Amino acid sequence: METYLFWIVPAASLLALVLAGYFYRQMMQESEGTPAMQKIASHVRKGAMSYLKQQYKVVAWVFAVLVVLFAVMAYGFNLQNSWVPVAFLTGGFFSGLAGYLGMKTATYASARTANAARSSLNKGLRIAFRSGAVMGLVVVGLGLLDISFWYLLLDHCVPEDMMNPTSKLCMITTTMLTFGMGASTQALFARVGGGIYTKAADVGADLVGKVEAGIPEDDPRNPATIADNVGDNVGDVAGMGADLYESYCGSILATAALGAAAFIGSGNTDMQFKAVIAPMLIAAVGILLSIIGIFTVRTREGENMKELLQALSRGTNLSSLLIVAATFGILWLLNITNWQYIAWAVVVGLAVGIIIGRSTEYYTSQSYKPTRKLSESGKTGPATVIISGIGLGMISTTIPVIAVVAGIILSYWLASGFDLSNISMGLYGIGIAAVGMLSTLGITLATDAYGPIADNAGGNAEMCELGEEVRKRTDALDSLGNTTAATGKGFAIGSAALTGLALLASYIEEIRIGLERLGNTVLQLPGGESVPLHKASFTDFMIYYDVTLMNPKVLSGMFIGSMMAFLFCGLTMNAVGRAAAHMVEEVRRQFREIKGILEGKAEPDYARCVAISTQGAQKEMLFPSLLAIIAPILTGLIFGVPGVIGLLTGGLSSGFVLAIFMANAGGAWDNAKKYVEEGNFGGKGSEVHRATVVGDTVGDPFKDTSGPSLNILIKLMSMVAIVMAGLTVSWSLF
Amino acid sequence: METYLFWIVPAASLLALVLAGYFYRQMMQESEGTPAMQKIASHVRKGAMSYLKQQYKVVAWVFAVLVVLFAVMAYGFNLQNSWVPVAFLTGGFFSGLAGYLGMKTATYASARTANAARSSLNKGLRIAFRSGAVMGLVVVGLGLLDISFWYLLLDHCVPEDMMNPTSKLCMITTTMLTFGMGASTQALFARVGGGIYTKAADVGADLVGKVEAGIPEDDPRNPATIADNVGDNVGDVAGMGADLYESYCGSILATAALGAAAFIGSGNTDMQFKAVIAPMLIAAVGILLSIIGIFTVRTREGENMKELLQALSRGTNLSSLLIVAATFGILWLLNITNWQYIAWAVVVGLAVGIIIGRSTEYYTSQSYKPTRKLSESGKTGPATVIISGIGLGMISTTIPVIAVVAGIILSYWLASGFDLSNISMGLYGIGIAAVGMLSTLGITLATDAYGPIADNAGGNAEMCELGEEVRKRTDALDSLGNTTAATGKGFAIGSAALTGLALLASYIEEIRIGLERLGNTVLQLPGGESVPLHKASFTDFMIYYDVTLMNPKVLSGMFIGSMMAFLFCGLTMNAVGRAAAHMVEEVRRQFREIKGILEGKAEPDYARCVAISTQGAQKEMLFPSLLAIIAPILTGLIFGVPGVIGLLTGGLSSGFVLAIFMANAGGAWDNAKKYVEEGNFGGKGSEVHRATVVGDTVGDPFKDTSGPSLNILIKLMSMVAIVMAGLTVSWSLF
Repeated sequence: METYLFWIVPAASLLALVLAGYFYRQMMQESEGTPAMQKIASHVRKGAMSYLKQQYKVVAWVFAVLVVLFAVMAYGFNLQNSWVPVAFLTGGFFSGLAGYLGMKTATYASARTANAARSSLNKGLRIAFRSGAVMGLVVVGLGLLDISFWYLLLDHCVPEDMMNPTSKLCMITTTMLTFGMGASTQALFARVGGGIYTKAADVGADLVGKVEAGIPEDDPRNPATIADNVGDNVGDVAGMGADLYESYCGSILATAALGAAAFIGSGNTDMQFKAVIAPMLIAAVGILLSIIGIFTVRTREGENMKELLQALSRGTNLSSLLIVAATFGILWLLNITNWQYIAWAVVVGLAVGIIIGRSTEYYTSQSYKPTRKLSESGKTGPATVIISGIGLGMISTTIPVIAVVAGIILSYWLASGFDLSNISMGLYGIGIAAVGMLSTLGITLATDAYGPIADNAGGNAEMCELGEEVRKRTDALDSLGNTTAATGKGFAIGSAALTGLALLASYIEEIRIGLERLGNTVLQLPGGESVPLHKASFTDFMIYYDVTLMNPKVLSGMFIGSMMAFLFCGLTMNAVGRAAAHMVEEVRRQFREIKGILEGKAEPDYARCVAISTQGAQKEMLFPSLLAIIAPILTGLIFGVPGVIGLLTGGLSSGFVLAIFMANAGGAWDNAKKYVEEGNFGGKGSEVHRATVVGDTVGDPFKDTSGPSLNILIKLMSMVAIVMAGLTVSWSLF
Repeated sequence: METYLFWIVPAASLLALVLAGYFYRQMMQESEGTPAMQKIASHVRKGAMSYLKQQYKVVAWVFAVLVVLFAVMAYGFNLQNSWVPVAFLTGGFFSGLAGYLGMKTATYASARTANAARSSLNKGLRIAFRSGAVMGLVVVGLGLLDISFWYLLLDHCVPEDMMNPTSKLCMITTTMLTFGMGASTQALFARVGGGIYTKAADVGADLVGKVEAGIPEDDPRNPATIADNVGDNVGDVAGMGADLYESYCGSILATAALGAAAFIGSGNTDMQFKAVIAPMLIAAVGILLSIIGIFTVRTREGENMKELLQALSRGTNLSSLLIVAATFGILWLLNITNWQYIAWAVVVGLAVGIIIGRSTEYYTSQSYKPTRKLSESGKTGPATVIISGIGLGMISTTIPVIAVVAGIILSYWLASGFDLSNISMGLYGIGIAAVGMLSTLGITLATDAYGPIADNAGGNAEMCELGEEVRKRTDALDSLGNTTAATGKGFAIGSAALTGLALLASYIEEIRIGLERLGNTVLQLPGGESVPLHKASFTDFMIYYDVTLMNPKVLSGMFIGSMMAFLFCGLTMNAVGRAAAHMVEEVRRQFREIKGILEGKAEPDYARCVAISTQGAQKEMLFPSLLAIIAPILTGLIFGVPGVIGLLTGGLSSGFVLAIFMANAGGAWDNAKKYVEEGNFGGKGSEVHRATVVGDTVGDPFKDTSGPSLNILIKLMSMVAIVMAGLTVSWSLF
């Protein structure tokens, strides 16, 4: 066994963390600008930190309850192994930590970016991008650190005397999935809570400030301005950090579990070990290549927008190309069965991510026809803007779905050695495609995370009245970020679909372990055949539990899964609506009661708006998030294994399509408004502009609350099902 | 064999048609009112008829192409039996005829209703309701007529020398499904075309008339008024007629096919025959009971609204109660295995329909909290109205999904004799539940169809300036219709879900026949077992084709199915948006160019608006409708049987949830506006009113174009898959 190769994983993770620390220090050495700028930045920072503290308190309670539940299941009823409660906790902790560190960096970086933008566009870009890179590197670094730690711990502690030697790695990899559930739980709260916070503030600030009072965005006279800027940090930075930490770990862990499963029947522990560490190695090498990519993002003074965009793209493209080459190298070295075809799955994964990203860009950027037509529909008022935006969003689901379907079939087909009946290897290929897609997360997340930093820098510049030129530069940085973020979003959503499938397979693995734990050694198939449990294939389990599409329990699960996606979105949409309504009332009250506020003579009460967003988010995030945890448990208790698989696949297929619809409709509304603001169809202040502002406001919770939360919902439901598999196999109503 | 029982079916159908003729004549004897009223009515009638003529021309071309395709498949390649092309045509013809007759009645009835309302509310109700009953009776009468005709024809013509005696009934019932496809195709065009027509006119009339010019609904100064009234007829009457003809026949045919399949292995042709005619008999008796119900809807002079509602409810409740009792009688007489449990499935079906209807009412009526809160969200502008409405609609999917899931499990469990592994009988129970739900369609459709008649009567009254009192009475009739229609919609959507499942099973039957046609006699299962084809169970087919949720082809199909639902809605939403935009421009142009139009001194050019809606609908309906036909064929050619089943289940689960979301969000927006118009939150003309008008406009295509078309989409995709099964089993790419 090439066990020494494994050490690349923790080494890469430490390197990422050290470099993140270096970039952080570099950024901190920059000046934060004038006292006014420092004051605003400190307001935002305090608001963001106090929100995060509040949120982590609530989440800590949820974790406490779940850990007690897991402990009872593991130690009281032997329905889970004893590592589950602890692994769950570390996943939650690291996911939260990634969000915290990313957000801390962002809140320190925004004023520094604004200050740097006073001297040049390039300096601003460098600070913002390097600060974004801190987030990217922290996420991948902490992710692989947690994975390495648990792998080593379990490898050391799990006794060798299992039913058969290959079972040990299966036990290790499925236990590690538990920390994926911890990460997903934390991520869902972060996304939902942060998403409600940021959009309540944003919608509230826009509706009263922009629409009613007619003052510009980020104007210091608007009482909700600070809350709005805090929101960018807690939603778009901390939320995204926790989210992508979860996606990253989820794809690696699910693929490792599939690797262990693919060779369970063969008895070939050497090959099994290689299949388990392959996704970790791809991720580890991806970190190194991301770092190379980050360093190639250099800009010369006086470059224009197009050149800056090229500089950013150069970094990500280089990393992507290198990871393809490196994957062939890694798999060749490991010499896994079919390695040359499996390696192509990484190419497939990257291609799917790029296609989804490009399609997102086409449907949501004002450089293309769909969004321009959406702007034009504003001529007939807000109603047609909404109708057209919903139409556009729904139609825009076509290309991503076709891309994902092609990706599923191709990566499966390749990894199975062109034999569709080789399910284990085929599914492993799907997992590898997801890992490939996210392997360069270190740099893609950097280009994603720098957007909100630039956005906040713009807010700071506006509030401190740094002048047109500086604001223009931060706007340029912001819009540059929007373009690169489209690709990043494509990767996030595409990987969610593929990881969702991989997790489905991991669920079956967990069912196998659950049955073993209950003392079963064979699967008695309905035809009369008996299959030894540790040799049973995926198809055997499907037949044993009748997970076919004629089983009413499977179909019921599918209906519930589809419903869950809609219900979850509905709850989060309404939460934003309610919290925003409170914000609107508060801002109106301040405009009414605090005299001289609109003339800039009196200071608004920023803190109250921050408090309203905080309370709203805390109150509203709990129910939808808990629902995501309860639904798979309840479905399992009522409909058993077939019901749960129905739930997961129904939720996955509906949720994926719904997520793309919401993200793209929201993005298109945002940019349709910007297109009008650029002077088209009457420009700012025209009737068309007012109509598109309505679209933009509706789009806010679409693209920043409900849509991205769906990605996590899909995976969290799978993770819960996996962790609860022991309970499901031991009892169900039907 | 109790073959004499079958004759009840054609007898009931003829009775329904005769009675429809009687009601029609009765209505025609009433006076159409003043010359002005006659003139308006004739305008609307001509517009509606000319639209329908235009639409049937386009649809005829589509049918011609499909018939040629089917003929080639049947006569050229032996991939289908020789009756398919003809059966397909009759289904389309009768579905179109039902829509045509219903619409003809409605266009003659509206002015007569308005005229009757001049003397009393009761007289208006009677004419409108009896005219609605014409539609109800025509739909059920033509449905059972077509079913009887084909049953007798095939029974007479199909040779007895099939592979085994029970195969004959299977062949007959699955061939009859082909005319279901004809009906579905016609229905989809009618719903989509009619839906685009009516909403383009409605949105156009509202946006310029109500919002910009501030004139009331149906004002004769609005050039789009006639088009708007025509739209009610072509969309809400002709579209709904074709739609429910399809649902009605679909549920009966699918259940008959399941009945034939349930006893295919037993060799018990007697029992098989009984299982086939049971759904037809339930429907036939349902017609008789509907007629009884229709005659009990009597009102005394001077009754108030509540008493009128009670009169309507009395009719439908009585019919529902009687059908339950009658079903027990029919099944006892037939003495089918487990008859006492199967009969309970009808109770389950009716209960599910009522629960969905009640939940629709709760979420969309201004008598309850959700819609009132939606109105209140108008205080913060149109954006929050849209956000809250979407939230409300998404959340409102919960109860219907739980009801349908409970209905599936219960009716399956009952009919299987409490043995979940008895799949054939269980699925038959689901079919019976759907048939039970729609058995009283004769009267529920009457209460549904009378709504648009009352609506048009109101339009006529407004345009002819018949005065406040008359308009008030027609409005009362209209809102009475809205309440009863909620239950009707619950039945339509609930039955779509159950029929969708039954059709899934019919697809497997068609696969069996397709394999037989190719010369197969056994299914070679992967475990090594061989099962004789005519004895193979549903599970055997699932295992043979690996239709499990770990097969990437199944999962790919599911993704595509979910996407289809969204894409289809997106296309129809956009179609309405585009057609409405043309209408807005035209109305604005007329207001601008025709002098004196707003002062009532010059007559607007109604005909041009009618022409714009007609052209818009014709142009826009083709692509989405064809897509629904092409998608299952293409999926079959690429991914084979597992892909098609994935497509159908994915489309069913996502489409069902999406349809409820859209219908309820649209309904709630409509009534939220009405609630404000009733004087709440500032009443008509306030800012809140303006905000809720935006919601109402967005809701129009939600509830009247995209939402209801989805019901048909779900079933049409299944029907296409069934008819194309011969092609799918003979060749696929993967």
